[in-house]
Amino acid sequence: MNINGRTIFFDNPPVITGSAGVCGKKEGEGPLAEDFDAIFEDTTMGQQSYELAESAMLHDAIIRAISNAQISPTDVNFILSGDLLDQCMGSAFAIKDLEIPSIGLFGACSTMALSLSLGAMLVDGGADCVVAGTSSHFCSSERQFRFPLEYGGQRPPTAQWTVTGAGSAVIKSSGDGIKIKSVSIGTICDLGITDANNMGAAMAPAAEKTIYEFLRDTKTRPADYDLILTGDLGFTGSQLLYELMENEHGIDIRNKHNDCGLMIYNLKEQDVNSGGSGCGCSGSVLCSHIIKRMKKGNLKKVLFAATGALMSPTSSKQGNPIPGIAHAVLLEV
Amino acid sequence: MNINGRTIFFDNPPVITGSAGVCGKKEGEGPLAEDFDAIFEDTTMGQQSYELAESAMLHDAIIRAISNAQISPTDVNFILSGDLLDQCMGSAFAIKDLEIPSIGLFGACSTMALSLSLGAMLVDGGADCVVAGTSSHFCSSERQFRFPLEYGGQRPPTAQWTVTGAGSAVIKSSGDGIKIKSVSIGTICDLGITDANNMGAAMAPAAEKTIYEFLRDTKTRPADYDLILTGDLGFTGSQLLYELMENEHGIDIRNKHNDCGLMIYNLKEQDVNSGGSGCGCSGSVLCSHIIKRMKKGNLKKVLFAATGALMSPTSSKQGNPIPGIAHAVLLEV
Repeated sequence: MNINGRTIFFDNPPVITGSAGVCGKKEGEGPLAEDFDAIFEDTTMGQQSYELAESAMLHDAIIRAISNAQISPTDVNFILSGDLLDQCMGSAFAIKDLEIPSIGLFGACSTMALSLSLGAMLVDGGADCVVAGTSSHFCSSERQFRFPLEYGGQRPPTAQWTVTGAGSAVIKSSGDGIKIKSVSIGTICDLGITDANNMGAAMAPAAEKTIYEFLRDTKTRPADYDLILTGDLGFTGSQLLYELMENEHGIDIRNKHNDCGLMIYNLKEQDVNSGGSGCGCSGSVLCSHIIKRMKKGNLKKVLFAATGALMSPTSSKQGNPIPGIAHAVLLEV
Repeated sequence: MNINGRTIFFDNPPVITGSAGVCGKKEGEGPLAEDFDAIFEDTTMGQQSYELAESAMLHDAIIRAISNAQISPTDVNFILSGDLLDQCMGSAFAIKDLEIPSIGLFGACSTMALSLSLGAMLVDGGADCVVAGTSSHFCSSERQFRFPLEYGGQRPPTAQWTVTGAGSAVIKSSGDGIKIKSVSIGTICDLGITDANNMGAAMAPAAEKTIYEFLRDTKTRPADYDLILTGDLGFTGSQLLYELMENEHGIDIRNKHNDCGLMIYNLKEQDVNSGGSGCGCSGSVLCSHIIKRMKKGNLKKVLFAATGALMSPTSSKQGNPIPGIAHAVLLEV
């Protein structure tokens, strides 16, 4: 890899040779239903807890991605995975029986971009094949981060709905598929946002920073991309991103931007307020819908910048701000 | 990197050019006191919470390591860090103001070995300079994983004492220092241990697997090392590791093995039962005591294999087993 500014360039771009995105019932009723590789009507996945259901869903996505890439688990050098659950339990229980060397990540909702970035760097550095993945589950997240599921509190308009879903991608040093041309590891941004019901606001500055630096380092403009895709800024965060990009850098990304949290639900009909969130939001949308559109030739050059809100219930209750981070991955057919 | 079996070899070994290990009051009263780079008598670090105190301690270790390596934060391509707190808050708040691209890791108590392994792979792959680090704090861990600090429950003999400490190391592609010759990313082992007060038993099978595979892949024996150092198996876990290595593979590591959790305290006098634990245990011991001994020439070849118990309070309360993992790093003068 060559590093210029904040951006990492690959002379021989690693290739996503297989991927899969799976989701729960509510996501399966949204606009992307056709592209998901599986829709689980029973979001308990036959497990005894929602936490184990999340693991089962991620396990399913990983196996589908491996199958889609026409490899076997023994071909995989490393699996890179993380999630929102305390101590990343979703990933640990998803991959514990796969016998694949495991690199645990924590990037909150930026994990799909983090795992793809790091995976691409490892493949560029000499690994043959890695698997990247992540997951989230509405029920396991909601009761961990907010309230018991039975509690019927009102959600403010800025609140987002944690996606029940998982995504996984196989990255190899060569082969047919989507190329990872360059990546960018973000720095943490903290503008003092403390409202845990407005994660879009906490993450938008990180998205602005990473996208701006990527455009700067690659000497490109929004017009050079078919799509600039954020992870889960939702409606509020996306509007803030537009303002920040315009006011701070004079760059208008409105025509090229979309957000996985806006795409996965019908915002008005599905009662999700500002949109979808969670690691599984960008994980499931990127690894199914986006990659399928790229394979069909509908999208050729996608800058994927997933954001994460680095908060815990403890840090929020202690009155701390919510630091944000965004990692970016340039995908090309 | 070249991968043989589970082991990753570097033709041009990355170098640890600086490091620092810091700790709290109790650790500063133990046998390694002289080698710690700082001992904080006030384990609140002047912060408003123990969680922020942990972050302040990790921040301190990172700054000391960067200073020890005679570089500045702007020289660092990536910082790799993780900890035990929910959503890795210890790391997020430690590094949020450093403006360094941040790769969040979760490896529980194996994090020091995971961050060194991954850091070495990134440097081998083309990064100039990375920082690896981790932390734990008795007070933030105890109340998160077990009981409120005020609760005076009796601890079984197998229980370990979470170390208040942090460690950090700077890895560069060349320079004076300790060479990272090869690394191994572990697979998750689950032998069905469910006792959260016996993490040594949960982690010993992972240590056995990683150490055995490393010896196999490198065609070496325990006699080829000055020290085989585990992270925090404690007394119980170390005894189990000896038995597993002997019974499963006919390999006796007793004469060459030590464990950071056994080294950091006077087990009998300091009332820590089976020994120290936590990410900061191997983090602080490796980055201070061990690296200083290596620099003095007292140790020349050290196989560092830190273990992690991939448990959360939720997973344990739901009756799930505790999966273990171990990553290994071969350090040579």
